[in-house]
Amino acid sequence: MLINVPETVVADGLRGMAAAHPELTVDVENRLVLRRDAPVAGKVGLVSGGGSGHEPLHAGFVGPGMLSAACPGEIFTSPVPDQMVKAAAAVDSGAGVLFVVKNYTGDVLNFDMAAELAEEEGVRVARVLVDDDVAVTDSTFTAGRRGTGATLFVEKIAGALADEGASLERVEAVARQVNASARSFGVALSAVTTPAKGSPTFDLPSGELELGIGIHGEPGRERRPMMTSGEIADFAVHAVLEDLRPSGPVLVLVNGMGATPLLELYGFNAEVRRVLSERGVPVARTLVGNYVTSLDMAGCSVTVCQVDEELLRLWDAPVQTPALRWGR
Amino acid sequence: MLINVPETVVADGLRGMAAAHPELTVDVENRLVLRRDAPVAGKVGLVSGGGSGHEPLHAGFVGPGMLSAACPGEIFTSPVPDQMVKAAAAVDSGAGVLFVVKNYTGDVLNFDMAAELAEEEGVRVARVLVDDDVAVTDSTFTAGRRGTGATLFVEKIAGALADEGASLERVEAVARQVNASARSFGVALSAVTTPAKGSPTFDLPSGELELGIGIHGEPGRERRPMMTSGEIADFAVHAVLEDLRPSGPVLVLVNGMGATPLLELYGFNAEVRRVLSERGVPVARTLVGNYVTSLDMAGCSVTVCQVDEELLRLWDAPVQTPALRWGR
Repeated sequence: MLINVPETVVADGLRGMAAAHPELTVDVENRLVLRRDAPVAGKVGLVSGGGSGHEPLHAGFVGPGMLSAACPGEIFTSPVPDQMVKAAAAVDSGAGVLFVVKNYTGDVLNFDMAAELAEEEGVRVARVLVDDDVAVTDSTFTAGRRGTGATLFVEKIAGALADEGASLERVEAVARQVNASARSFGVALSAVTTPAKGSPTFDLPSGELELGIGIHGEPGRERRPMMTSGEIADFAVHAVLEDLRPSGPVLVLVNGMGATPLLELYGFNAEVRRVLSERGVPVARTLVGNYVTSLDMAGCSVTVCQVDEELLRLWDAPVQTPALRWGR
Repeated sequence: MLINVPETVVADGLRGMAAAHPELTVDVENRLVLRRDAPVAGKVGLVSGGGSGHEPLHAGFVGPGMLSAACPGEIFTSPVPDQMVKAAAAVDSGAGVLFVVKNYTGDVLNFDMAAELAEEEGVRVARVLVDDDVAVTDSTFTAGRRGTGATLFVEKIAGALADEGASLERVEAVARQVNASARSFGVALSAVTTPAKGSPTFDLPSGELELGIGIHGEPGRERRPMMTSGEIADFAVHAVLEDLRPSGPVLVLVNGMGATPLLELYGFNAEVRRVLSERGVPVARTLVGNYVTSLDMAGCSVTVCQVDEELLRLWDAPVQTPALRWGR
């Protein structure tokens, strides 16, 4: 691992973000990454966060058109309510704050507590839970479905709407719509190694893969001998479409877990597109890359999100963050 | 690996790029990725290429403000002259074409032959050789220094200048200036596995690292027991500054080799910034991420490029490619 000591991995990463991104406010001591222009007058603030190790999620999505602030926790560990309360206070212009919370028990509890504390300080807070992973219900760190790739769609689309000056109620409603319209399925080709442990956190023999893996290496549906990219796409897209039956165009995220080469992710995208085409699902936009990762895990996930004209317009709206940038 | 069969990895990747990027022309059969608006009237065309396995380099850098075309070869294997000639013909508006060539013997020979053939077809061709890697001279596939991270700076800055309508002579001169002003040094924390071999191409025991690695896993300067991120930054930046003594501000690329988590790359950037600061080198811009990769190799490289006001202006100019986007 390219680290100093496990204890400083998150702080070191934030110091490096601060050096690379003068357009952001990076508060290393308080573990906060903020839009430099926060709070933006009259606009809803969008705050997310979660365990570190999934970069660029969430800090890499802070900036105009997406998140107002991100709260990074320790590796695979929820941030604490104090970070979230500070973030809410820093980004609230009086229009209120939406918390985007991936469905892991620690995150849910801490964001709930932070919402209460922030409300006591006079900040109006709404919350959207992201739970898009169809692989399993009730996992290692989760009651219900896990939150994974759809987080990117929720943060991008709700962020664009917030930047247009929509009300907190409207931003919350659209964030919920995006989550309800999105499903994901992930696959691991290798285990993940955390800095603290220094060795793989689970055992996945070479030549096998785990279907339905979580972004912390939580168990999925089953182990199998290695499958081809096409077979994995068949399995993953069918799992997604068992649960979501899109009646119109979709956004597709072909996401790398961290260690799978971009060339292979593009190859996987060709297979995902083939399966969607066979199932009659039109694709409006596709994003391929490492966006919701699990440190050095090899593997991928696919997220499909049905969109109407309004959601597609918000997806296409300009965004200026370290990891997603277009328009303007 | 997330592949179908080793023989189709490059074609599968191109099919997936075509599906994800309708704004590009992807010719899977001829192995070409082109700006959709090529040739652009009155403007110099910029063509690069090289072995696949380094994505997003080069195809991910095709678009307004950067490359006009990329020619992907097989994994770690030079593209053939026929691809380069076709690319030159497709992007030449009459203003000529600049070939950006990383210094590997196969690439150099093939781009030279392609330049001759293209000239015979009436295309004016100039060539810039990128040889920024200070780790070793005369390596496995190279006479002289290897071309690595500086390629990104050359392609971005020369691409911006070409888009402004500068002459072929001027674009070539600035491309040479960028290469002459840039130095790189890379480190491997694990070996690389190619699809054809299916197992690591060299032996790097866990707990050791290789200082001065090439982007195909070519040997570097020495093996050592694992070092901290700070120690690696000291070694790499000192190696770069032994050869380049910047008298003004620099661009910094902290590049991942493929499998090193983004969080760790940001942490490494903090250490790189510390060392540059200790050496009195002011940093104008920093880019952190996986840009010039070596499939699934863990590790990183640092590239430093001295810039004057004009080069910095061209670096900041708008760019719209799959992997680099800002402005406009």
